[in-house]
Amino acid sequence: MPLTTDVPTRGFPDAEYIDRTAKAQALMAKDDLAGLLLMSEEDVRYFTGFHTLFWQSPTRPWFLFVPADGKPIAVIPEIGADLMRRSWIEDIRTWSAPEPSDDGISLLKDLLSPLAKETARIGVMKGHETKLQMPLGDWEYLTAYLSGLKIVDCTPIVQSLRMVKSPAEIEKLEYICAIGSATFEGMPSIIRRGIPLEDVFREFRLRAISLGADDAPYVVGAADQGGYSDVISPPSRRTLKDGDILMLDSGCTWDGYFCDFNRNWAIDHADDNSKRAHNVLWRATQAGIEAAQPGKTCRDLFLSMSEILAEMDQSNGNIGRLGHGLGMQLTEQPSHAAFDNTLLKENMVITLEPSLNYGSGMMMVHEENIVVRRDGALLLSSRAPFDLPIVN
Amino acid sequence: MPLTTDVPTRGFPDAEYIDRTAKAQALMAKDDLAGLLLMSEEDVRYFTGFHTLFWQSPTRPWFLFVPADGKPIAVIPEIGADLMRRSWIEDIRTWSAPEPSDDGISLLKDLLSPLAKETARIGVMKGHETKLQMPLGDWEYLTAYLSGLKIVDCTPIVQSLRMVKSPAEIEKLEYICAIGSATFEGMPSIIRRGIPLEDVFREFRLRAISLGADDAPYVVGAADQGGYSDVISPPSRRTLKDGDILMLDSGCTWDGYFCDFNRNWAIDHADDNSKRAHNVLWRATQAGIEAAQPGKTCRDLFLSMSEILAEMDQSNGNIGRLGHGLGMQLTEQPSHAAFDNTLLKENMVITLEPSLNYGSGMMMVHEENIVVRRDGALLLSSRAPFDLPIVN
Repeated sequence: MPLTTDVPTRGFPDAEYIDRTAKAQALMAKDDLAGLLLMSEEDVRYFTGFHTLFWQSPTRPWFLFVPADGKPIAVIPEIGADLMRRSWIEDIRTWSAPEPSDDGISLLKDLLSPLAKETARIGVMKGHETKLQMPLGDWEYLTAYLSGLKIVDCTPIVQSLRMVKSPAEIEKLEYICAIGSATFEGMPSIIRRGIPLEDVFREFRLRAISLGADDAPYVVGAADQGGYSDVISPPSRRTLKDGDILMLDSGCTWDGYFCDFNRNWAIDHADDNSKRAHNVLWRATQAGIEAAQPGKTCRDLFLSMSEILAEMDQSNGNIGRLGHGLGMQLTEQPSHAAFDNTLLKENMVITLEPSLNYGSGMMMVHEENIVVRRDGALLLSSRAPFDLPIVN
Repeated sequence: MPLTTDVPTRGFPDAEYIDRTAKAQALMAKDDLAGLLLMSEEDVRYFTGFHTLFWQSPTRPWFLFVPADGKPIAVIPEIGADLMRRSWIEDIRTWSAPEPSDDGISLLKDLLSPLAKETARIGVMKGHETKLQMPLGDWEYLTAYLSGLKIVDCTPIVQSLRMVKSPAEIEKLEYICAIGSATFEGMPSIIRRGIPLEDVFREFRLRAISLGADDAPYVVGAADQGGYSDVISPPSRRTLKDGDILMLDSGCTWDGYFCDFNRNWAIDHADDNSKRAHNVLWRATQAGIEAAQPGKTCRDLFLSMSEILAEMDQSNGNIGRLGHGLGMQLTEQPSHAAFDNTLLKENMVITLEPSLNYGSGMMMVHEENIVVRRDGALLLSSRAPFDLPIVN
């Protein structure tokens, strides 16, 4: 029973990677960078198209060097060579990994030593939302050996590019959001008093995959009387009860792109507090949709949603922000928060995720996915109903 | 149609975490360590039981400090506080994350400054198979501020503990391996000429989840005439053809523990080379099963499998090893490789994964999962058939 929408083409034409690399190189030139040394799944995939679930194995480090001119250079374990050769990358340097005594380090020395001699500036991801995707000991050894290199933070370069999606990326995001929407729409036929939460989650996952998702790696939520107090738990065997508010939040994937939105339901009946919370959140989301215009900032988005939320809650919840970027990762830059002055641009894909606290320790969250168009937001997820849906 | 095996209990009793922490502290004492600062999903979960899919969001860093005495201290985003409070951890320090200007850094300064004044030794994961799971810029700032601290590598401490599984961990691994086995056993009813590879993979995932897996996050493989040349690709829409060799490798999860094994099938008929490769691999696996005794090393395991593989291939493949540890991660320490002299111990759970190259650029891989018992290996996966199965 796959979704009866046209299925987009998997992968991207080489032109996509050529364009991304050229844009990165233009930004690198402004910052006088001789190259970017990238290591994370998403950053490597962004510039090469190298797409594999094998990143789930933490054993082997992977490196991509984006030079100031020309194609990126892959320095990768031999096990990935065959797949990388199918990409637009030509210079692929491999070693037989794992090799704890030299996991790519000699190859990186060969590549970077000439630049170290010139005391060149090299960009590495050091900022917010990043990690060092190689052993810290190897990193310390390498940078001591290449002490001539000036290592600078290139997070703003890579994140500013990745935040704005191409038409082909948006097509994939639109498709997985449609699958997510169809999956949520079918859930009321499953949700009922007496069913264990774990079974609801399992059924969601099965339906999403049956509808065409490659996977539903993120399925979380909670249910309790009149609300829930946590939004990141795995499911328990607790059965749904009359008066429960159930929240299910999901990130499903297609061709390496995520949707990320949720739905709330009341079981058999809803108390007034929950109904009101749902109403406030719906209107806060609407305020976000209306504010999501090119030229506004993430802070503007945050403020417009916060203003509605303040009708019921002045605490701004415990999630730290009211939405975020969406793409190859379940959550990406930017953040809809008071600290984030990122300018919204056409073709950014973002979530709107207002949350509020109410009653005694209860919380409720809404989430929708949108793409910012020249004339405003376009919903990628189907919109949650205005009133808290009650399932019998 | 869930598996008709007794389903183990989710989670662990507190005694499990108390025991793990005590063992870590005994090893820390030998190394004069005042604490371990841990950041990865698995290391945090190992000592606390904090289990959530929310790690898929890269936005927020999470920290756990295991002191020389007493319970670990959690320094985590407020969004995780409710879930962490359900664990055995009492000292939970939170901040409203994300907050790029101070993502847990002030809290870490408060915690570690007294130790820095004493120029204490602190363990951090810096070794093989690890990464720095926080922004490198924050790490550089923190260590410069706490320059009195002596940061040493604690990879051997944590990995030596995690390699040996408890009875409750083995019960979870046994259960997910049984689900994986049952899923593979049903696949010949799906596999046939004309079906796209992508549909085979999707069906595998659906069946594994229906049988009780929480998810099947790792489903990879390939199919081509007389063999395959790559073992980490996502599936294409290529349809199975007469004479194809299909390999499907999967990591399914239950309660946060992985199985990781594969199966090979020939479509309609198999050429002699493929049959021989399957036979050699089956016997190499058998040699590994027989060699997997407490007191032997991973190098011994590697050599016993290599000896059989050399009948057909002297190259040792391009995977870099012939199996690895298994647990909370798809691949864990140790590695069955010439470089790894790790002593096999009772209750280690490992994969045996011989691979060989043959013909013109073809490869074949076998994989089984075992637990090392006092008197030798016990299979957790059902054994692949001796002869390459031919599916019509």
